[in-house]
Amino acid sequence: MSRLRVAVVGATGAVGQEMVSVLESRRFPVSDLVPLASERSRGKSVTFHGEAIEVKVLGKDSFRRVDLALFSAGGSISKEMAPVAVKDGAVVVDNSSAFRMEPEVPLVVPEVNPEAIAGHRGIIANPNCSTIIMVVAITPIHRLSPIQRIVASTYQASSGAGARGMDALLRELDGEGRRSSTVPLNTKAQGSPFPHRLAGNLIPRIDVLLDNGYTREEMKMVHETRKIMGLPPIPISATCVRVPVERAHSESIQVTTASPLTLDQIRTALRAAPGVKLEDAPREDIYPMPLIVSGQDDVSVGRIRRHPDEPSTYDLWVVGDQVRKGAALNAVQIAEKLFCA
Amino acid sequence: MSRLRVAVVGATGAVGQEMVSVLESRRFPVSDLVPLASERSRGKSVTFHGEAIEVKVLGKDSFRRVDLALFSAGGSISKEMAPVAVKDGAVVVDNSSAFRMEPEVPLVVPEVNPEAIAGHRGIIANPNCSTIIMVVAITPIHRLSPIQRIVASTYQASSGAGARGMDALLRELDGEGRRSSTVPLNTKAQGSPFPHRLAGNLIPRIDVLLDNGYTREEMKMVHETRKIMGLPPIPISATCVRVPVERAHSESIQVTTASPLTLDQIRTALRAAPGVKLEDAPREDIYPMPLIVSGQDDVSVGRIRRHPDEPSTYDLWVVGDQVRKGAALNAVQIAEKLFCA
Repeated sequence: MSRLRVAVVGATGAVGQEMVSVLESRRFPVSDLVPLASERSRGKSVTFHGEAIEVKVLGKDSFRRVDLALFSAGGSISKEMAPVAVKDGAVVVDNSSAFRMEPEVPLVVPEVNPEAIAGHRGIIANPNCSTIIMVVAITPIHRLSPIQRIVASTYQASSGAGARGMDALLRELDGEGRRSSTVPLNTKAQGSPFPHRLAGNLIPRIDVLLDNGYTREEMKMVHETRKIMGLPPIPISATCVRVPVERAHSESIQVTTASPLTLDQIRTALRAAPGVKLEDAPREDIYPMPLIVSGQDDVSVGRIRRHPDEPSTYDLWVVGDQVRKGAALNAVQIAEKLFCA
Repeated sequence: MSRLRVAVVGATGAVGQEMVSVLESRRFPVSDLVPLASERSRGKSVTFHGEAIEVKVLGKDSFRRVDLALFSAGGSISKEMAPVAVKDGAVVVDNSSAFRMEPEVPLVVPEVNPEAIAGHRGIIANPNCSTIIMVVAITPIHRLSPIQRIVASTYQASSGAGARGMDALLRELDGEGRRSSTVPLNTKAQGSPFPHRLAGNLIPRIDVLLDNGYTREEMKMVHETRKIMGLPPIPISATCVRVPVERAHSESIQVTTASPLTLDQIRTALRAAPGVKLEDAPREDIYPMPLIVSGQDDVSVGRIRRHPDEPSTYDLWVVGDQVRKGAALNAVQIAEKLFCA
């Protein structure tokens, strides 16, 4: 197979850096890596297979001869520059929310709906991180018996706000007033992207508020899940909460299926599912936790229980590395399906 | 009204100390305070209205002439010593789970079921902390239209494991390897009551595992909620998770009511409800957060939303001080209903 010229837009961000690292570790067939970023990153470089590659400033001519462009620089840059890349002949895998809900743009989690890739017209969207982690975990159950209802509460890491988010949390933890109860509420780290201090705290608002009272993050989990899994408009709701954890997202998920399943059926399906790690021995204190899952490719699933009162309802606890499977890894896996299948 | 001789069993623990502090701040009519604890606390004292009172070692003769005994020293001590206190003529308000589900023992949250106190036979049980916080928040909605189904996911603070829990978290935060991603999983604080490191992590297992796969903490929220609110066996499920927060518990709660309500009706009911603080202006980043609620008496409720697909289902975000309303304050409020009404 011929090697590809691969651009990474937003190469100095948390997800962009992880994209470069995932391209390297998965030995994606790269002939040239083209790291792109804004003016602010001029002079920086990224390391790829031991070589320092200078970051170029993103512009209209950045995508000449580029085969694949991985975007992770925010929605407005994607909106402006992804069409430019497509026009120049590149296939774009876009990590922003800019195109996700456009009907002609495939929204893909390779373990769930790889077949959607085939219909692309130049842009393939990488879903929201919390959504990716959820659908990887619940799709094996959906294949046993169709899911009829979903309730999700998230425990989202600082990395969801990028390198600035992780840095702000670490500085709050490092800095003055670590003992949360003695800290005035407004003592958040300088330059923090969060609305309040995160260390020792929980922030139940991620992304902007919409008219229905849910946040955009919460409604992404509703709409993107339906699109990726091809669900009818079943009831789905989410509550998205930022927690003082570095980079793995956790989710308490309740699903109701059309007919009752045994827990053994569910565990067997999850054990066999690609991208899933079953960690479900709670008596031995084995269950998914962000400290273990950070840096891991698979989404971990555990605490699988049948609802005490409803035979077709199940509670799960799911953890995935937000930067990796929640963003960079999923994007590279899409590219692998495109170019390496 | 005559003043009372009040024993506090477990007076040197996190909840016991808070009980003493709440008795003082609420000017409960105490003639003598009798702080009791185990042999380990011999020689310690507690401060009450500026006076240092020596902690006595708990024994069979500790309750002579005691009118009220507040117990917070664990289930086995309650089982053994509460009957002794009752026999000596005291009324016991017990913070342990020892008697909560016994049919003849009232399980009371004064804002919800104060009438249950009247039937006591010497022991009144103080509910589980997560349960108290939930029922205070949802009862005003239940009074508008009966609740038919509850889904709860908790975000529980270190204080739920007592002073040792808070101390372990703070030492993990203070100590080596604060940057969670570089810390091996087993680096938990010496003497930590938690099964894993809590700093930078989440632990989805609180209390022991039961045969149905739920933890005892999770099933307390099911059974105690039904008993306190006098609910029929409607479907309730909970997922209980420890988070690196010091002393306020947070809960993502979904309730389904018999008939649709307007959000204004719900907000008006919550605004008028005793023990509730409505903090629901998410566009201004006003919502309940553990850093604000710590040390506050009221349970804070916010992020009130109508389910996008179900007109009678509502998502809420609720935070309460675990040591205070979740334990010590609720116990003293029960005593006030008994003696000061």
